[in-house]
This record gives sequence, structure tokens and C-alpha cells, in this order.
Amino acid sequence: MGPQYAPSLRSRLAPLLLFLQIGFIAIYAFYIEIESNVKVDGITFSSFYPEFQDVNVMVIVGFGFLGTFLVRYGFSGSGFNLLVAVIATQWAIILNGIESWYHRGKIPINLRSLVVAEMCTASALISIGAVMGKTNPVHLILIALLEVSGFVLNEWLLRTLLNVQPLNGIMLLHIFGAFFGLMLTWVLHRKGSEQRFEKEKFDSKTGLFSTLGTVFLWMFWPSFNSVLVDNRTPGTKLAAICSTYLALAVSAVTAAAVSVLSSPKGKLHPIHMQSCMLAGGVAVGVSMSAVHQPWEAMTIGFTAAVVSTIGFRYLKIHMLFAFQCHDTCAILSTHGLPGLLGWLAHLLIQIKDDHTTAIRFAVFHIYTLLITITLSLFMGIITGVILKWKFWRPPQDKKYFDDQAFWEFPHQAVRK
Amino acid sequence: MGPQYAPSLRSRLAPLLLFLQIGFIAIYAFYIEIESNVKVDGITFSSFYPEFQDVNVMVIVGFGFLGTFLVRYGFSGSGFNLLVAVIATQWAIILNGIESWYHRGKIPINLRSLVVAEMCTASALISIGAVMGKTNPVHLILIALLEVSGFVLNEWLLRTLLNVQPLNGIMLLHIFGAFFGLMLTWVLHRKGSEQRFEKEKFDSKTGLFSTLGTVFLWMFWPSFNSVLVDNRTPGTKLAAICSTYLALAVSAVTAAAVSVLSSPKGKLHPIHMQSCMLAGGVAVGVSMSAVHQPWEAMTIGFTAAVVSTIGFRYLKIHMLFAFQCHDTCAILSTHGLPGLLGWLAHLLIQIKDDHTTAIRFAVFHIYTLLITITLSLFMGIITGVILKWKFWRPPQDKKYFDDQAFWEFPHQAVRK
Amino acid sequence: MGPQYAPSLRSRLAPLLLFLQIGFIAIYAFYIEIESNVKVDGITFSSFYPEFQDVNVMVIVGFGFLGTFLVRYGFSGSGFNLLVAVIATQWAIILNGIESWYHRGKIPINLRSLVVAEMCTASALISIGAVMGKTNPVHLILIALLEVSGFVLNEWLLRTLLNVQPLNGIMLLHIFGAFFGLMLTWVLHRKGSEQRFEKEKFDSKTGLFSTLGTVFLWMFWPSFNSVLVDNRTPGTKLAAICSTYLALAVSAVTAAAVSVLSSPKGKLHPIHMQSCMLAGGVAVGVSMSAVHQPWEAMTIGFTAAVVSTIGFRYLKIHMLFAFQCHDTCAILSTHGLPGLLGWLAHLLIQIKDDHTTAIRFAVFHIYTLLITITLSLFMGIITGVILKWKFWRPPQDKKYFDDQAFWEFPHQAVRK
Repeated sequence: MGPQYAPSLRSRLAPLLLFLQIGFIAIYAFYIEIESNVKVDGITFSSFYPEFQDVNVMVIVGFGFLGTFLVRYGFSGSGFNLLVAVIATQWAIILNGIESWYHRGKIPINLRSLVVAEMCTASALISIGAVMGKTNPVHLILIALLEVSGFVLNEWLLRTLLNVQPLNGIMLLHIFGAFFGLMLTWVLHRKGSEQRFEKEKFDSKTGLFSTLGTVFLWMFWPSFNSVLVDNRTPGTKLAAICSTYLALAVSAVTAAAVSVLSSPKGKLHPIHMQSCMLAGGVAVGVSMSAVHQPWEAMTIGFTAAVVSTIGFRYLKIHMLFAFQCHDTCAILSTHGLPGLLGWLAHLLIQIKDDHTTAIRFAVFHIYTLLITITLSLFMGIITGVILKWKFWRPPQDKKYFDDQAFWEFPHQAVRK
Repeated sequence: MGPQYAPSLRSRLAPLLLFLQIGFIAIYAFYIEIESNVKVDGITFSSFYPEFQDVNVMVIVGFGFLGTFLVRYGFSGSGFNLLVAVIATQWAIILNGIESWYHRGKIPINLRSLVVAEMCTASALISIGAVMGKTNPVHLILIALLEVSGFVLNEWLLRTLLNVQPLNGIMLLHIFGAFFGLMLTWVLHRKGSEQRFEKEKFDSKTGLFSTLGTVFLWMFWPSFNSVLVDNRTPGTKLAAICSTYLALAVSAVTAAAVSVLSSPKGKLHPIHMQSCMLAGGVAVGVSMSAVHQPWEAMTIGFTAAVVSTIGFRYLKIHMLFAFQCHDTCAILSTHGLPGLLGWLAHLLIQIKDDHTTAIRFAVFHIYTLLITITLSLFMGIITGVILKWKFWRPPQDKKYFDDQAFWEFPHQAVRK
Repeated sequence: MGPQYAPSLRSRLAPLLLFLQIGFIAIYAFYIEIESNVKVDGITFSSFYPEFQDVNVMVIVGFGFLGTFLVRYGFSGSGFNLLVAVIATQWAIILNGIESWYHRGKIPINLRSLVVAEMCTASALISIGAVMGKTNPVHLILIALLEVSGFVLNEWLLRTLLNVQPLNGIMLLHIFGAFFGLMLTWVLHRKGSEQRFEKEKFDSKTGLFSTLGTVFLWMFWPSFNSVLVDNRTPGTKLAAICSTYLALAVSAVTAAAVSVLSSPKGKLHPIHMQSCMLAGGVAVGVSMSAVHQPWEAMTIGFTAAVVSTIGFRYLKIHMLFAFQCHDTCAILSTHGLPGLLGWLAHLLIQIKDDHTTAIRFAVFHIYTLLITITLSLFMGIITGVILKWKFWRPPQDKKYFDDQAFWEFPHQAVRK
């Protein structure tokens, strides 16, 4: 059961934000410095900055507007996304720099560390997709802080224990974010709230706003997958970009085909299309370091879109009734399943290409997945239990998916 | 007459999409490889990638959201645009690589070939503007495949027969696309459907979405015109960018002036403004290789905007009543006439600058236009005749300009 | 009192636009040339073009869509912004080149001069924010021409008299634009028009469009502040980008905290959030050349957001009742106060870092501010007096904040 009265966030949100922000400024004052020793600044900078901005656009416009499809939840979808993103990024910069602080006493920031921090943020934003509309901003900030901590810990464990490349560890963000979010929404589920989500719907205008977010994600995904790829071997970066581009193209076509096939009336579903056409980017991102041929990327994109679209159409509703797991943005189908598929594709291609170390690689690769999933489930449950505390003032059931719980509309024009 | 019942696309669209996509993957598996021999990868890549992304944004966000002004056709306008774009791009990569396949057995892809393919796609998207809202996605895919084939054939003919520079051939995409589309909509016209387009209108929200598409086209048009310009002569690329920028600026001002002048009440027309302020970019693109002075570009932009705005205001309605040619996005005024104007400007500037080869150049230049227009009209008619076949399940007249024919709205919020 | 009848702009707007545009073309024909002597074109061009486009996106999409929050004023907000921007940019290119014309007889244009011109334009767009919805496009164009002239004069005075660095002079655009706009709206205020602004409100859809403009400004602000920073000292540009990014991140968090704290119900205000989270970018931009540490930028961002949010919540309404100064987009809180704060921060950091020249620097710095504010107030009053002339056909009071005064809606779908 939710609360009887409409809770005010004034005494929770404002102190939390001010505490975090003043704390961050204090930490940055003592330990963070802008990297000054940039050898080949001209070329490096000019080749890196546009891709950094592409990732920035994906995190702010892409994820932000993807969450505006709910008919009364546009301000929260885009606004809380930005709020959470900037807090998570500041936090991730600190966590990612702990090693450097330990060895050198200072944490240098540069464009690369900003991009890595934004990728950790993306992982948190994926998790938040599962509980969107059923939480308040205080919840979202706590989720982001804990999710980013878990994700950075996971990457550190993989790197230290299994010697996994940093890039491969970071690209597991889709899997980590999805399973963290699913656990969270499962723990937070309230009995009897299935019937009441009458505001969980879209209309033609809000659907267009989320289309906008989707296409910005879709267009700049090649930058997302390639930005951290080392360009010392000529062509590696180009391969990452072309592979992602082709996988996304195939995904879009396949998602449309499967959406029409699985609809009794032969129609497309706007929200399915929006989420599922991104599946190829997710899957290719996770398997990036093994994909060398265009057709491999395209086949991964094809399979990912099939799995994702079928998952969205049939799995989302089963998850709710069978497991009491309500997944607002269908992150299981959009990030979880394509992520697992990408992991599998990585394994298969690597085994096919290199027989000698096949067994050894497979064992390591399976351990990588096990650690990631275990840690994400564990952190998700812990976070969920912390958020259950009534102290955080959860929204009323009838204010789920409603901007009016959090935003002032003093001059509201149309009261439908 | 359209069909009596509402046709389902399940048995047409899904098989077509799956057949095309699996076919493309098969072809790519055998013949396409990512270019590995990139000599000066660092600099080339970093200077090319941002412009590639600008063109990508134009094709997906620009053309996609330009087509959202129709009040009930937003999902189709933006969604089908993406679907058609990715299919056309994959197809154009194959067609553009046939020569390379013939000589070397393999088709290399790199950022440049992706950009060229997206420009062929832009040509198909222009054609689709003429029939938007009156076709189903199966039609649109067939149009895109045939239009791209025709356009690549045209560029090959011009290059082989008349020795036209590839860049000049590609920039004729506006003329080819416009006349192809006009023939198409003329052939597809159904008797008695003039009165019934009551959904062909915009409101203040959908008009803002198409404004968004317009400004993204407007802003990145300098990238569109300059991306393929060779940068070996220093300053050529800068000249292309500055010329396009100035022509677009002049276009926007002039379109507003002519729109106000030609309105009885002295008001601006939002859709006129959106289309006609792009006219300068079209005209300067077609005449790019001859334009060297800012004032030339500005004069071309001025004239293009005048022609385009007057064409939109008076010509669109005459085309419908005199020739039964219904042109949804007014591609004749937006791309056709400014394209012809750019062709003429190229001729005049070239003759003025170089008297010695004037006659010879003029003859070649006129042949270029004749071949392009003949082929586009011919291909447009053939495509139209193929699409007339009832097998493709055309939409009912009363479902013209309506998303509900193709998209599920299970939780539709507002049923106006 | 406004006019009794609805005035037509046909005989005012069209001649003005055509006169300006043909005049610009004539001036450009004689005096403007595209810079051909570009030594290291490859690297310079590729590192500059993406940042040029970011600034372009900010001016057209950012400022344009920021002004769409008014429920019936979306076309004007975005359309007039574009119209004014292209005129102001053409004018600024001429004015900025007068010195070069005086010495060499020609004005060269390149990407850098386009960026500088767009920054002068941004200054005019800020001023226009104060009178948005209460003026017609003829007014806006005159404001832009006069504001840009004043701003270029100010920068020249500062450079000539006080030897202020060009970059520092340009970054005062926020202060100049804000005070110019405030004077303007104060002079233009009509008695008795306070009660009548019933259309000055937002709804959930128009609020999302302005969110979109805001996030594009927010994301690309690092480019805005860093694009003109000289990259010869390695790391300077990186420092500018990281400082701006961190200041903006802190601003967003702080604006949310203060907005919730100052709301009786503990809710966020969408329009406050949108304007005030940009305050950090303004303040850091003005103090850019003195900021070297991340924590300095973050502290400036924190203070700017506090000042800006409190200013928006309490000052806007007091300005109206106490001074008859109606400020549509709250430019005083968004640009004026954060700009002054940035100026103060520059002073304090410089004095702290360098004691020897502290007094001398302080005197120069105070003169800089005095000249800028005096000139902006003076030019604002002159412009306001010129615009009071009935010849320009001001809109009726009841048509304030209404697109229908200026735009045709022949097929308007929904007449709410």
C-alpha cells in the first residue's frame, strides 16, 4: 500500500541534493585536477571531442526523451533523467579515480574520463527505466549512486580477478543495468497495484517526443560503441563504427518485420519499434571486440531485434503476472536480452576464430557473466530493500506516472 | 477508387522486410568488407566522422521530422522515414560498389561510401515526400529500391558518357528525386480523391515537430554540401561551407519576405517557411563546384527562395487541379525548382568565368540535365505502374494521412 | 494602449526584409571574401568545424526552442528566432570586419568569424527574450540590428580603451544582452497591460519543446565557452570544456534543490529548472580566463544557480510591479545576475592568484563592467524609444503571446 496523503519532498529532496553537491565540490577541491600533460593535444582533442559530445547527447537527449512517452510524465521523464545523470557522472568520476588517487594522490580528469563516467551513468539510467513513474526523485538519486558504485566495483573485480579489458568490462553496462533494475522493481512491487496504472499510456504527441529520443540514440550509437576503442591499430575504430551502424540498420528493419508479424491486425507498435530497433546497438556493443566482419554485426543485429521484439510483445506482461515484476521501459527486452545475446555472440565468434584457447576463453567468459549478473542481482536487491524505507516518502499509487506529484503547473493551460 | 475494407499488411510487409534483410545479410557476407587499408587514418577519420554524423542527422531527424507536420501522421512520417532510409542505404552501398566488385571481387565500405549511400537515400526520401500519406510502407520500400537504382544508374551514365564529376552527379539528387516523385504521384492519383483529404492539415504541435526537423536540415546543410568536397586544395571545403551557410541565411530571410508579401493578410505560413528556407541549400548544392564568391551563393539563395515560395503558394494547387498531381510535401517547389535553378546558375557562372570552353560546357551541361530528367521521369512512371498493382494493398482513401492504418494505439490516451 | 484593429505587417515586414537582404548582398559583393590563405587547413578545419556546428545548434535549436514554452507562441518563438538570428549574423559579420576593411579593403570570412558573429547574435537573442510575445517581427529585427551594433561597439571600446582581450569582451554578451533587454522592455511597457497576459502560460507539451531547447543549450555550452579559446597552450581548451561541464552539472543539481526549497508544496517548477540550470554556463563563461581549478568552476556554478533560481522565483514579479518591467524569459535571472556573478568571480580569483597587480586589475575590471552596463542601458533606451513609434505597427494587447497575429493557420486542426 502506498501512503494515504500526497507527500511533500521539500524536506527530503532539497537537503539530499545540497548535501551531495556540496560534498562533491569539497572532494573535487581536494582531489580532482584537470589533466595538463596532454602530449599531442591538437589531434587527440579534435578527434575525441565530437564523439564525447555524441555520447553526451545520447545520455541527455537520448535517454531523457526516450522516457517521455508516458502521457503525463514528460517533465519527470526528461527532467529527472538530467538530474540523475549529472549526479551519477560526478560520482562516477570520483569512483573511477580511486585507483589513481591511491597511487598518485590526485584524480586527473580529461575527455576520456568524462566519457567513461557517462557510460557508468548510462548503466544507472537503464536501471531507472524499470522503475520509472513509480518512484520519486529521491529514490532515483539513491538508485543512481548505488548502481554506479556497483557497476564500478564490478568492472574493477573483472579487471583484477579475470584480467578483462576495461572496454569489455564497461560494455557490460547493459547487462548490469538491466538485471539491477529488474531486481529493484521486483523488490519495490506493491501488492494490488497491477490494475491501477491507468496513466501508463502514450498518445501521438508524447510518442513523437520519445521517437525523437530514440533516433538520437540510434544515430549516435556508433559513437557510443567506438569512442573508447583504441585507434592505434588503424581501422579498428572504423570497424567499430561500421559494425554498429549496420547492426542498427538491420535491427530497425527486423524489429518492424517482427512487430507486424506478431500483431493480429498486422500493425506496428510505436513503442516496440522505438525500443527494439536499438537492440542491435546493444548486442554489438557487448561483443564489439570480437566482431570483425560486417555480416557478423548484421546477424547479431538481426537476432537481437527478433529476441527483443518478441520479448517486448510477450515477456513484459508475463513478467508482471508471473513474477510481480513491473518493467516500465521494458529494459529486459531492450537491454537485458540483447546484452546476453551479445555476450553469447562474443563467445561463439571467439571460439570459431581461435580454437587453441577456446576452452580457456569460454571459462573466463562465463565467469565474467556470472560475476556481473550475481553482483547486479545482489546490489539490486540491497538497493530495493533500502528504498522500501518509508522515510523516502514514496509517491501514492494514484500519482504513479503523473508529473503533478513533483512539478508545479501554476499556469496550466489545458486541464484535460 | 481505393479498397472497401481496411487491408492488413501482415502478409505483405513482414515477408518483404525479412526477405530484403536476409538477402542483404547474405550479399554482405560474401562481398562486403570494411576497408582496412587506411593510410592517414587519424586525421582523415577525425575530420570526416563529424560531417558523416551531420549527414546522418539530416537523413534521420531532418527528413524524418520534416514529415511530421500532418496532424495524424507523425508516427508514419518519422517511423517510415527511418525504415525506408536504412533499407535504401544498405541497397545503395551494394549498387555503388558494383564497379569495385567487378574489378576486385569485393566491395569496401568506409565512412565515405556510407555518406554517398546516405545521399542516394536522401534522393529517395525526397521522392517519397510527394506520395507521403497516400501509400503504405510496402509501397515506400519499393519506391526507395527503384529510386535508388535509378539514381545510381543515372550517376553512372553521367560519369561514363559525359565524364561528369561524381560529386556533381550526386548533387543532382534533388532534381532526380523531385521529378521521380512527381511522376509517381501523377500515376498513382485516384479519380475523385481531391475532396477527401480532410486529414491533410497541421496543428501548432505537429507544426513544431516539423520545425524541429527543418532546423536540423537547415543547420547541417553546410555539412551535406561540403562533406564530399575534396580538401586537397586548401580552402575548397571552407568555401563550400561558407557559401552554403550564407545561401541558407539569405533563403530564410527571403522566404519570410515573399511569404508575407503573397499573403492577403500579411501573415507568414509555417509550412511555407519550413520548406522554402531550405531552397538556398538545394540550389547552392547543385551549383557548388562553380560558386566561388559569397555574393554568388547569396544571390542564388535569394532567387531560389523567391521561386520556391511563389511555387509553394500558387503552383501546388494548380498542379493538383490541372495535372491531377498531388504533391504532399511540395517537393516540386522545395527540391525541383531550386535544383533546376542551381543547374542554371552553374551554367551561367561557368560561362561567365571561362569564355573559351563556354559552348562545349553548355552542351555537356544541357545533356546532363536532359539525361537526368528523362531517366527520372521514366523510372517514376515505371515505379508508379508497378505500385498500381492491387497486390500491394493500397490504403483506403479515408485512411489517407492517418497513422491508425498502420500503427497500434492500444492505450491511446486522447480520442479526439 | 495598443491599437484598436489588428495591424497587417505586409507593408512593413516584407519591404524591411527585402531591403536588408538586398543591401547585405550588395555589401558582401563588394567587400566580403572567403579566406583563402589557410595554412594548416586540414587540422585547423577539422578541429574547428564540429565546435562551430555546436554553437550553430545552440543559436538555432537552443535559443529557438527555449522560447517555445508559451502555449500559443511556438511558431513565433522558434521561427522569429531563426529569422532574427540570420539577419543579425550577416550584420555582425560586416560590423566585425570594419577594421579589416579599413586596413585592407576587404573583409575575410572563415569559420572563426562566423562563430564570433553568432556570439554577437546570441547577445541579441538574449535581449529579445525580455520582450518576446509583446512585439512584432519588425521590432525584433530592429532590436537585433541595434543590439548587435551596440555590442560590437562595446567590444571595440573595451579593446581599444582598456586593452581587454577579445575573448573576454565577447563573453560579456550575457551582461550586455540582459541589461539592453531590460531597458527595452521597461521603455516599451504599456500602462494597464499587467492583468491581460492570460496567454502567458505553458502546458505539458510546449514545456517539453522548451526542455528540448534547454538541453541542447546545456549540452553544447562547453563548446560555446571553449570554441574561441586559443589552443596554442596545450590543455587550455580542455580546461575550458571541463570547467564549463562541471559548472553546468552543479547548476542543474543546485537549481533543482533551490526550486524545491523555495516552493511551498516542495515541487519543482519546469520553467525555473530550464532557465536556472544554465546559470553555471553563463557565469563560468564570463570568468573563463581566470578559472583554472574544477572546484572554482563548480563553486561558481553553485552560486550562480542559487542566485538565478531565487531571482526567478521572487525577482521577476517584483520587477513587474515595482518597475513596470515585464521580462518574459526572465533574462535578468538567467543571464544578467549570473553574468555579474561571473564578472565578480573573475575579479576575486584574479586578485587571489596575483597580489602584485591586484589594484590595477580591479580598476580595469570595474571600468570594463561600467562601460558595458552604461552602453547597454543607453542603447536599450534608445532602441526602446525608436520602437515606441506607431509606424512599426505594434501588436494589440489581446494578441500578445499569440501566434495567430503573425501566422496563417488555414487548416488548423484543433481550435481549443
